[in-house]
Amino acid sequence: MPSYLPATVGMPLSEVDTPALILDLDAFERNLDRMDASLKGRSIRLRPHAKSHKCPEIALRQIRRGAAGVCCQKVSEAEAMVDGGVPDVLIANEVVGTPKLKRLIALAKRARIAVCADDAGNVAALDEAARAAGVRLDVFVEVNVGANRCGVAPGEPSLRLAQAIARSSNLRFAGLQAYQGAAQHLRKVEERRAAIEAACAHVRETLELLEDARIACERVTGAGTGTYMFEAVSGVYHELQAGSYIFMDVDYAKNDWTESGIPRFEHSLYVWTTVMSRTAPERAVVDAGLKASSVDSGMPRVAELEGAEYVKASDEHGVLKLNGSVRLAVGEKLKLIPGHCDPTVNLYDQYVCVRNGRVEAIWPITARGAVW
Amino acid sequence: MPSYLPATVGMPLSEVDTPALILDLDAFERNLDRMDASLKGRSIRLRPHAKSHKCPEIALRQIRRGAAGVCCQKVSEAEAMVDGGVPDVLIANEVVGTPKLKRLIALAKRARIAVCADDAGNVAALDEAARAAGVRLDVFVEVNVGANRCGVAPGEPSLRLAQAIARSSNLRFAGLQAYQGAAQHLRKVEERRAAIEAACAHVRETLELLEDARIACERVTGAGTGTYMFEAVSGVYHELQAGSYIFMDVDYAKNDWTESGIPRFEHSLYVWTTVMSRTAPERAVVDAGLKASSVDSGMPRVAELEGAEYVKASDEHGVLKLNGSVRLAVGEKLKLIPGHCDPTVNLYDQYVCVRNGRVEAIWPITARGAVW
Repeated sequence: MPSYLPATVGMPLSEVDTPALILDLDAFERNLDRMDASLKGRSIRLRPHAKSHKCPEIALRQIRRGAAGVCCQKVSEAEAMVDGGVPDVLIANEVVGTPKLKRLIALAKRARIAVCADDAGNVAALDEAARAAGVRLDVFVEVNVGANRCGVAPGEPSLRLAQAIARSSNLRFAGLQAYQGAAQHLRKVEERRAAIEAACAHVRETLELLEDARIACERVTGAGTGTYMFEAVSGVYHELQAGSYIFMDVDYAKNDWTESGIPRFEHSLYVWTTVMSRTAPERAVVDAGLKASSVDSGMPRVAELEGAEYVKASDEHGVLKLNGSVRLAVGEKLKLIPGHCDPTVNLYDQYVCVRNGRVEAIWPITARGAVW
Repeated sequence: MPSYLPATVGMPLSEVDTPALILDLDAFERNLDRMDASLKGRSIRLRPHAKSHKCPEIALRQIRRGAAGVCCQKVSEAEAMVDGGVPDVLIANEVVGTPKLKRLIALAKRARIAVCADDAGNVAALDEAARAAGVRLDVFVEVNVGANRCGVAPGEPSLRLAQAIARSSNLRFAGLQAYQGAAQHLRKVEERRAAIEAACAHVRETLELLEDARIACERVTGAGTGTYMFEAVSGVYHELQAGSYIFMDVDYAKNDWTESGIPRFEHSLYVWTTVMSRTAPERAVVDAGLKASSVDSGMPRVAELEGAEYVKASDEHGVLKLNGSVRLAVGEKLKLIPGHCDPTVNLYDQYVCVRNGRVEAIWPITARGAVW
């Protein structure tokens, strides 16, 4: 809601007000390149998750490079994407309740929209909403491939739900949503690989039942930044939903990537912050606390400065522990690497996009706060 | 940014879309009453912290009941308050950097504004900015009374900074900011009482030096919901900065309050959420994850439903563990009590204010995202 902008185009980074969400455009574009290179020659498409960036400017750049479209988690996120010109959105999540179904169906008249389901009653409600509006809606069965969050059990329960969708006059069975969210931050490559192999076994079991029942499964979609190469080589996935690869964060950087086939994406997203207090030699306080950098997955990390550790976040303060060699004065500015990129992005209304030390663009985060 | 509203005035709560931030107006008003009653007959004023609510509608209600004004942490928060009609704001924090100082001074022409300082260079910058604009600005010395965050050491260092302010042609030494933030969530009453007694000793030591130096100290300001009665009876504080008492949250509810003199404030703030998945008997998934209820201080708690525990938050999902007796269907709605009220409020653009099961008002959270 505040109309104040921390930066203007052309401004040197040093003058950008704090806290601000900084996107290093060179690093961001190198991450896009790395992803493209890692999938080159494979018959699999990227459908990046827009819950990470919440920004049509970024979605359109991904699509121009060949992405099939984007994923969203919420109808309101999808609305922001379609409003921003994105032609193809998979809501990789269940949508429940009459007001949301109406909005979902209205959106399906404006763009290519698909949604997931894991409940027969919800499938009936989707069908009714689609019929009332004269729309045919693509629906994926969400399969629980090991994360134990949403999703029906693989095998027979997934088959039955696919049959219910296929029988519905205004729905089309579009495939399987098979995202193993619990695997993404397992630190060891072998743990992540094993979790995705188990997920693939669940998918194959379900695909065999669908084939026996003569229900065509056009797409299997899933994967995240932590595992996507394992899904890519599995032979069962058609689409990859990685989102965080464009930014990276402290939590993902803790994963081991050795011989995973996944490139070393670099940090491109930062919280720009000012030292606001220096009243003890071992301590600096910065103006970015937990309302400026989400701490759900741990503290942010101080970038490009040895000997300074972000040890404590309160609402509007971050406490840095300094070793004896660090000289930091009140008013100096620092870059922080967020602990978790997605909820940090959700705290801001714009990216301050920087290249060669200057603000090149300001991209609105139009799906910020889009929880519905 | 999303323009969609989850509710309209007059709507039954059951129809309010989710996730939404619900304010139970009866409980909220009872909390205001409890605070007023607890301070009745004491010569101390409330200056509630607006970082908790970020909403002029609430600030004005507090002021109409006798609050001296509000506190803010950021210039942009203070701007939102003044824009909303609040006449008196203490920025209970340091303000650093030329753009912020300019905005601070501009605001001081529109309302009664004060700010804190803990650095001589910052005092000089404040004086210069005030002089350039022809303003005289009230400045408090922030004293480190035990939280080890911002604030100069009590005693001589605080005296020296007060002298620097008093010497500045365009600043006025307004008093001491003495907030013991680290005490607020100590669970035992005696621990909190002891921490505030220690803080008071630091304040008294500083007041004696100020008196010896013939520097008048008009106000000592501080305190939070966890401790405010100890500051109220100390004889050294003039203003209390409690903020969370209007809402309460899971974290504050874990404090012991027995014989603290602090009333039992009740929960008035909720996240309204829908069950979106029920694929296992022991598990329900709701549509409010960590972008809908901040988990920095722990998980939200399920209100008014025995046998359901919110055990895991991901970005857009909350996993509830159910005992065998709980029947919850897809589409049912629940109230969650946020783990930490302040950063949860900062995720939303409005309160859906409910009384007797109906939406009575929608109050904009105009300082949402006001990090500058």
